[in-house]
Amino acid sequence: MSGGIRANASLVSLSFKAPSRVVTSRELEARLGLGPGVIERLTGIRARRYLGPGESLQSLAVEACREALARSGRRPEEIGGLIFYTDTPPLLPCAGGYRQVYYDVSAHLHDLLREQGVRLECGCTSIGGSCVAFLHSLEMASGLIRSGARDNILVVGAAANSLFLEGTDKNAAMTFADGAAAGLVASSAEEGLIGFHALTDGRGYDAGYYENYRTLVVDRKRVAEFAPAALAEAWTGLLARTGLTVDDIDVVIPHQAGIKIVERGMALAGIPSEKVYLCLQDYGNMGAPAVEMALAKAVEDGRVRDGDVVALVAFGTGWNCGAAALRYRAGGGRR
Amino acid sequence: MSGGIRANASLVSLSFKAPSRVVTSRELEARLGLGPGVIERLTGIRARRYLGPGESLQSLAVEACREALARSGRRPEEIGGLIFYTDTPPLLPCAGGYRQVYYDVSAHLHDLLREQGVRLECGCTSIGGSCVAFLHSLEMASGLIRSGARDNILVVGAAANSLFLEGTDKNAAMTFADGAAAGLVASSAEEGLIGFHALTDGRGYDAGYYENYRTLVVDRKRVAEFAPAALAEAWTGLLARTGLTVDDIDVVIPHQAGIKIVERGMALAGIPSEKVYLCLQDYGNMGAPAVEMALAKAVEDGRVRDGDVVALVAFGTGWNCGAAALRYRAGGGRR
Repeated sequence: MSGGIRANASLVSLSFKAPSRVVTSRELEARLGLGPGVIERLTGIRARRYLGPGESLQSLAVEACREALARSGRRPEEIGGLIFYTDTPPLLPCAGGYRQVYYDVSAHLHDLLREQGVRLECGCTSIGGSCVAFLHSLEMASGLIRSGARDNILVVGAAANSLFLEGTDKNAAMTFADGAAAGLVASSAEEGLIGFHALTDGRGYDAGYYENYRTLVVDRKRVAEFAPAALAEAWTGLLARTGLTVDDIDVVIPHQAGIKIVERGMALAGIPSEKVYLCLQDYGNMGAPAVEMALAKAVEDGRVRDGDVVALVAFGTGWNCGAAALRYRAGGGRR
Repeated sequence: MSGGIRANASLVSLSFKAPSRVVTSRELEARLGLGPGVIERLTGIRARRYLGPGESLQSLAVEACREALARSGRRPEEIGGLIFYTDTPPLLPCAGGYRQVYYDVSAHLHDLLREQGVRLECGCTSIGGSCVAFLHSLEMASGLIRSGARDNILVVGAAANSLFLEGTDKNAAMTFADGAAAGLVASSAEEGLIGFHALTDGRGYDAGYYENYRTLVVDRKRVAEFAPAALAEAWTGLLARTGLTVDDIDVVIPHQAGIKIVERGMALAGIPSEKVYLCLQDYGNMGAPAVEMALAKAVEDGRVRDGDVVALVAFGTGWNCGAAALRYRAGGGRR
């Protein structure tokens, strides 16, 4: 591999969109026939958001794109690519609900943005798989930018888990939620995206899936066993690849799965709990967009501050683990 | 964007796997109630391949990966990433057929490879969308390699269109086929992957899709109108981005859709027909893996030779267009 100076890539703006319908754990406990307080005790989740009237995965994703774009200071015609990622099967909104249609959602987002006056002049593509899809997408965007092939890539994730919970088991039903997040990745003078780690162990390919494309099925036992180890692997691999130590990292944002999985994973990795950011209490587990959403929220909350080094660590069925280290710059989008 | 020397990336090995069941156009004409010779006259297709007993999208993809890997001279542990791409909905092979299951196929391929003694130690991910998914995947792999983030990326595509043709219209039924292709992209001293072009116009997001995830629906009229212009746009954009002219390019490999669309597109782009490689006569339209498969076949046929500059030009619903220019080196995989 030849050496030399390369462009750097940074995440210069972020946005997240939680849907309007707030569903408290108390409400869900009543519906699922669970005792009061059970859900929060098991998962740490007090409330989550589901799609409300007039909302869809597509509408949330478009809103997040628009906000991330506006915050970046870029014009639509400067955008060099759109990467849409998700782990939920595509559904096409129609009068009265949804059609089960497998199609190119990234192109649909392009069209919906155009209808709202945002005319992107770039290629759009979709990345799928699991809850690490955001990390994969971010690494792909970083590669395109650092190699000089493209600039200004929108990385947008969305999930509509609430539409796939009918007939699912109680453990999945109490955890999953809807939402979207978007970020703009661009070339920068300073190194923003420091490094990545990704690893797949395919023996978990059947530990989480959508039966008949309709019902989310999660093999809770296997996930509970795998997930903490995967978070630790994501962390260890990231440190090895980047040369960073725990002291270099200001905030750790794990996949916002249940609190017990996260706590076990952080303990296994030796990450001090005061460095860990969680927002699953109020938003549940959004699946694929959860990590990008939590990063956007941590910035909004002031938990991630200018100059902070942030580690993102995620796991997903597959088995997949993925991690990224980045230095956050407030207003990094203003050139 | 800072300048400087970057690594180059090349496609160092290729493989394609057509399934075993040969379906002639005569056979299909009888089944669809069409007169003899109609299909070849309309599409140029004399025969296509469908999945036979014991075959699946997954088995073809795994075979293609194994062959591309063996031809590259790389060991499994040297592989830095696997990108699986497709445009057909996932189906999980099971006793007696398939289960409609939405899941992470890339992780499943990892597991099937492991069962056959090929232990990859990397992240696996999936890219979807349309028939340009190969071009997007190749550009992503190129970015990861040229930026120095990863090396030795397997790019494997597969489609099982024959499982989605029940109830489809005759035009789609006569065109689509099954197959898989894989290539290994790696860093190289010489520039192999020269440049890319990609453009999405979302107004075609509903021109091709899988209704109920079961039946392929293609809006033939809109596709016939869009596709030739998209091939021309892919070509023009590629020349503009790379600085190449038609004289610099030895072989043009278009998306292997119907012959009329390709001929109109090539004429519109001003590409001399003697530069155009087609294998749709014998394999039909495999969808997403068609371009990678045709490239592998053109190398096998001796149509693409050592040192040739090849242009890949594709279109897909979405609307999407995508293109790549590469210099082919026989045995480029031997280091």
